[in-house]
Amino acid sequence: MPKRCARPQQAWDGELKFYDCRTAPSPRRVRIFLAEKGLDIETVEVDLGAGEQFSEAFRKVNPDCVVPALELDDGSVVSEVLAICQYLEELQPVPSLLGSTPEERARVTMWNAKVEQQGLWAMAEAFRNSAKGLADRAVTGPDAYPQIPELAERGHKRVEQFFRRLDDSLSETRFVAGDNYSIADITALVVVEFARWIKIATPDDAKNLSRWYAEVSGRPSAAV
Amino acid sequence: MPKRCARPQQAWDGELKFYDCRTAPSPRRVRIFLAEKGLDIETVEVDLGAGEQFSEAFRKVNPDCVVPALELDDGSVVSEVLAICQYLEELQPVPSLLGSTPEERARVTMWNAKVEQQGLWAMAEAFRNSAKGLADRAVTGPDAYPQIPELAERGHKRVEQFFRRLDDSLSETRFVAGDNYSIADITALVVVEFARWIKIATPDDAKNLSRWYAEVSGRPSAAV
Repeated sequence: MPKRCARPQQAWDGELKFYDCRTAPSPRRVRIFLAEKGLDIETVEVDLGAGEQFSEAFRKVNPDCVVPALELDDGSVVSEVLAICQYLEELQPVPSLLGSTPEERARVTMWNAKVEQQGLWAMAEAFRNSAKGLADRAVTGPDAYPQIPELAERGHKRVEQFFRRLDDSLSETRFVAGDNYSIADITALVVVEFARWIKIATPDDAKNLSRWYAEVSGRPSAAV
Repeated sequence: MPKRCARPQQAWDGELKFYDCRTAPSPRRVRIFLAEKGLDIETVEVDLGAGEQFSEAFRKVNPDCVVPALELDDGSVVSEVLAICQYLEELQPVPSLLGSTPEERARVTMWNAKVEQQGLWAMAEAFRNSAKGLADRAVTGPDAYPQIPELAERGHKRVEQFFRRLDDSLSETRFVAGDNYSIADITALVVVEFARWIKIATPDDAKNLSRWYAEVSGRPSAAV
């Protein structure tokens, strides 16, 4: 198994600041990305459980009230996982996690988008529309929206369907987007593990998915 | 007003094939992108109204049963708007529509993601959960999911809220992601115009949004 993140972690010499939350799936995508790059940047923990994302202080960082967010040297803030990872890839291109040729980059972006839409957003629907602590927080962000129980059910079904499709696709490729490990694997790994936490399991007979999961979850970056 | 796409259209000399549908919002994003680049590639119309996306022939192109999709020289297919546009940007970098520096690229990707999640997906929820012709097609793709009327209502509210936020943001910038026209403007333009078609109007007092809309909708690319 490749251990591309076995290199010693590097302290970034700029003034990047990463707003994280250890328990949430989206910022974990960035943590894994940083670990794969061997980058160690200043991290600020935002306590989502205590509602810190809605504080006046954090609204100045990200008015959308979500993590992850990355504060750049010039004080500007980039949110949205793909945007943050794209910026980090440009700072530290090796190992490439967004693809190495135009075709591969397109395939990685495509697969990352599919995993987000069919897996991650469906999982978020299942979770946010059923969790007791999120009664009026069915949508991330500053606005209150009540839960829709039918949507939680639908999200659950969609995640199961997504796992079936991913299993099919992984019968032909080693990683989600082809021959190389990429951000699409990171996103899919986070979906599989968070889904399990909310009691949506991968199908027992999804052999390709199991083989892939064993490989990507065994990388040191998956420990973050 | 800049007319960056006033250049004569170029016929692409590769074998790209673009799967389009004239009436749908997502492929329109790619059409506008192509027009801004001055690229003219072979286009195949897929009749979504007649269910052509579910045909055996189209499933071989894109098993997700959605347009847009771009067939490359080697016969592989890239779906997902951002992946397609990223590939086209690499083929024809000028004019840049994804940003010209690492910081700008991150900002463009961030804003495009925000407009997708807060605008485009919310609009799709409003539309697909209420349109008569989509009774069991509440989610794009090959699987049937019944409509959830509450979700249509919620989508409607979220789009209105998105317009308010975009108006606030456009008080500080000329375009959605800053000083330059980008894919984020294309996505936002498509949201505003498709939303109007499904009777979700921009607020009358959203002056910044109106000023921005007059500019971007006046570009020749907006006619596609």
